[in-house]
Amino acid sequence: MALSTQPYKGARDFYPPDKRFQKFMFSVMRKTAERYGYEEYDAPILEPLEIYTAKTGDEIVNDQTYTFEDRGGRKVTIRPEMTPTVSRMVAGKRQELAYPLRWYSIPNLWRYERPQAGRLREHWQLNVDIFGIEELDAELEVIQISHEILKNLGATDETFNIRLNTRKLTNYVLADHLGLDDATTHSASKLMDRMHKMERSEFVKLLKEVMPPGKADELVKLLSVKELSELPDSIKSQEPAKRLSALLDLLKKSGITNASYDPTLIRGFDYYTDIVFEVFDNHPDNNRSMFGGGRYDGLVGMFGVEPVPTVGFGMGDVTLQKFIELHDLMPPIGTETDLYVVLIDEVSDHARKVIADFRQMGINVAVDWESQKADKAIKSAVKKQIPFCLFIGAREIQDEQYTLKDLATTKEEHGSVEYLSKVIKAKKAGSRYLHITG
Amino acid sequence: MALSTQPYKGARDFYPPDKRFQKFMFSVMRKTAERYGYEEYDAPILEPLEIYTAKTGDEIVNDQTYTFEDRGGRKVTIRPEMTPTVSRMVAGKRQELAYPLRWYSIPNLWRYERPQAGRLREHWQLNVDIFGIEELDAELEVIQISHEILKNLGATDETFNIRLNTRKLTNYVLADHLGLDDATTHSASKLMDRMHKMERSEFVKLLKEVMPPGKADELVKLLSVKELSELPDSIKSQEPAKRLSALLDLLKKSGITNASYDPTLIRGFDYYTDIVFEVFDNHPDNNRSMFGGGRYDGLVGMFGVEPVPTVGFGMGDVTLQKFIELHDLMPPIGTETDLYVVLIDEVSDHARKVIADFRQMGINVAVDWESQKADKAIKSAVKKQIPFCLFIGAREIQDEQYTLKDLATTKEEHGSVEYLSKVIKAKKAGSRYLHITG
Repeated sequence: MALSTQPYKGARDFYPPDKRFQKFMFSVMRKTAERYGYEEYDAPILEPLEIYTAKTGDEIVNDQTYTFEDRGGRKVTIRPEMTPTVSRMVAGKRQELAYPLRWYSIPNLWRYERPQAGRLREHWQLNVDIFGIEELDAELEVIQISHEILKNLGATDETFNIRLNTRKLTNYVLADHLGLDDATTHSASKLMDRMHKMERSEFVKLLKEVMPPGKADELVKLLSVKELSELPDSIKSQEPAKRLSALLDLLKKSGITNASYDPTLIRGFDYYTDIVFEVFDNHPDNNRSMFGGGRYDGLVGMFGVEPVPTVGFGMGDVTLQKFIELHDLMPPIGTETDLYVVLIDEVSDHARKVIADFRQMGINVAVDWESQKADKAIKSAVKKQIPFCLFIGAREIQDEQYTLKDLATTKEEHGSVEYLSKVIKAKKAGSRYLHITG
Repeated sequence: MALSTQPYKGARDFYPPDKRFQKFMFSVMRKTAERYGYEEYDAPILEPLEIYTAKTGDEIVNDQTYTFEDRGGRKVTIRPEMTPTVSRMVAGKRQELAYPLRWYSIPNLWRYERPQAGRLREHWQLNVDIFGIEELDAELEVIQISHEILKNLGATDETFNIRLNTRKLTNYVLADHLGLDDATTHSASKLMDRMHKMERSEFVKLLKEVMPPGKADELVKLLSVKELSELPDSIKSQEPAKRLSALLDLLKKSGITNASYDPTLIRGFDYYTDIVFEVFDNHPDNNRSMFGGGRYDGLVGMFGVEPVPTVGFGMGDVTLQKFIELHDLMPPIGTETDLYVVLIDEVSDHARKVIADFRQMGINVAVDWESQKADKAIKSAVKKQIPFCLFIGAREIQDEQYTLKDLATTKEEHGSVEYLSKVIKAKKAGSRYLHITG
């Protein structure tokens, strides 16, 4: 029986045009992160299960990871997220590293999702983290980077919005203001994390199952607030509220016009300790959270070293691609190959020298080694989106003069390798196509 | 109990300096492959087990893969090699793709190796494959690429050598010339594959256990031949020998001076059908095979479509890094961060504008947000290998004139953001450091 040609369910093959687009996204991510002084790191895709059990959240670890026993009987997990890994790495060189530490990575992550539209089992995710800063400068910087990546992709502030909250204020409201016990506080915040996935009436009903109806009504009222200033004095005078207010001011001063307070924002991971943020698409067809992050000051300390204050975010390739497509921000991306060489006589041996000369001039050359009809070869080059074709026959070899065909305009140029290399480079430099290389 | 900070056994963390070096190697690989018209693709790290059981070789699949059952009861494998995956992808679009198809990828691969020096469980491997060419042009091209990658890393032809053989000739010698049956042919070639890992006497002894002593002696003699021309006429007149001879001629004509015939070369994978090659390090401390490839015309056909003639090779990052280190080819690689900004007064708010201006000018800026002593900040910047430091205090903000310190020369420059950006860019352009970005 023939084997299936399909990739593993929920994961994607990247044929060259898909890979080019992914490289374009990654290149914008890398350049933006590096503009802020971040350095790239990487780590193995397998991690011991234990680094997730502590803080990632039970649902993700128990139901959604790829975990198995290796041949040595160790429980290992294909990483579902990068934050525990980067915390492990910082802890491993806690004393040697120079703070503030600015790191980024673009790992692939695996989750055992039930197959459904838009839910993939493998995705890539930019992770940007800053270690060693307790002040708001850290939150400001990572939010600026996430904002700037979208701007560098061509998005305007109108096409997305940034929502902020703080775990500390949410806890204050639940535990102190409403006086709920620990278990109820926990249940209420788990409900809040899911509230946008259900009807409002359903949410209120569920809230009333875990706390007195009066308190549920008060919580619902507090969750409908749009500005920190609308909160009761007793809440907005708390330190976490002041801190968030100061961050919103800093964002405004930095020219970010689309950030605001959202009391309903929770984020699923258990490890966040203070300010959290999420970036939402404003497109009517995709009005949902795209990615987010926050402060997690406790994770490095899990590895037996002194904790390090940390703020970070993760931006996935699947949601970002959807954003780019919906807002029509897709740039034309060209193949890296500049020239398709076609042999019109049996001249392989002589042609090799000419081809080597073009490569020496910095031209990326693919060769159609089978001598064939010109129109068939041109069709092949067009299919590969290669911009130029060059024909080499016995006469061309003898004269050392070649014919270059621009496949977009069908215009022809004649001349030496050196001259034609210049023609190709000039066109590439002035092209509306992006060319992404490693 | 604190969690371990160690990466999973046999796999590596890449701290930023390690990652920079890896990116340098990948960048040379990418640029060289693209110079020959190859396009990058990618695929999921998980594959169904079945795509390996057919042709990869029993030892690898049964003893050396990470294979487990997913939650849906499917047997999945973390890819130990990329060749079955790329064959699956080509088969999946067999009719739509334009041939010859030139593809490359740099996947990470996993093998369950017993922990020992230099044997890792995760490594990255450049895979370069050309589909759709039956002629030797395909072999020549991929060998040229592997040769050129080493040259582009700074290696000379004296530091490595390329050894070639053909499966067809080996089979002819065993099955036809020596008249061995299928089972004996198979055992003999498995022994040959391991012959360089044992003493010669041991090899001869083992050979004599599977075939008549006279034939074993004759085989040993044939395996000691250094040139195709030294073979008996009845063997060297065979088509596979002529084909290999023609390839050796083409390599010589293409300026590759370090390629030769090696009758002992087998390569482990079962899927090779004809010419195979391996690249050996000539360094006395590492006189071993680094990587290799060959023709495998049958693999795409396993997926129920018409077969496609294919030649490819895989080049691993671990062996390549060892080669670079042993031959002292390691270039100085600089951090992408250009400038470290230090605040010498409480001027964060004003400084943000200045920092944004530097970034606008294309300078990669990391900021030390804690106002601190200049010498401590400089120490931090030096530790991070950042070339320049800039100090911003109240006076600088007022004058809009800043002091830039070159940390290598300790020379200082004074001026505007625009002027100092030019100073930084000029130094970067003339730097002996490589800067690799995505």
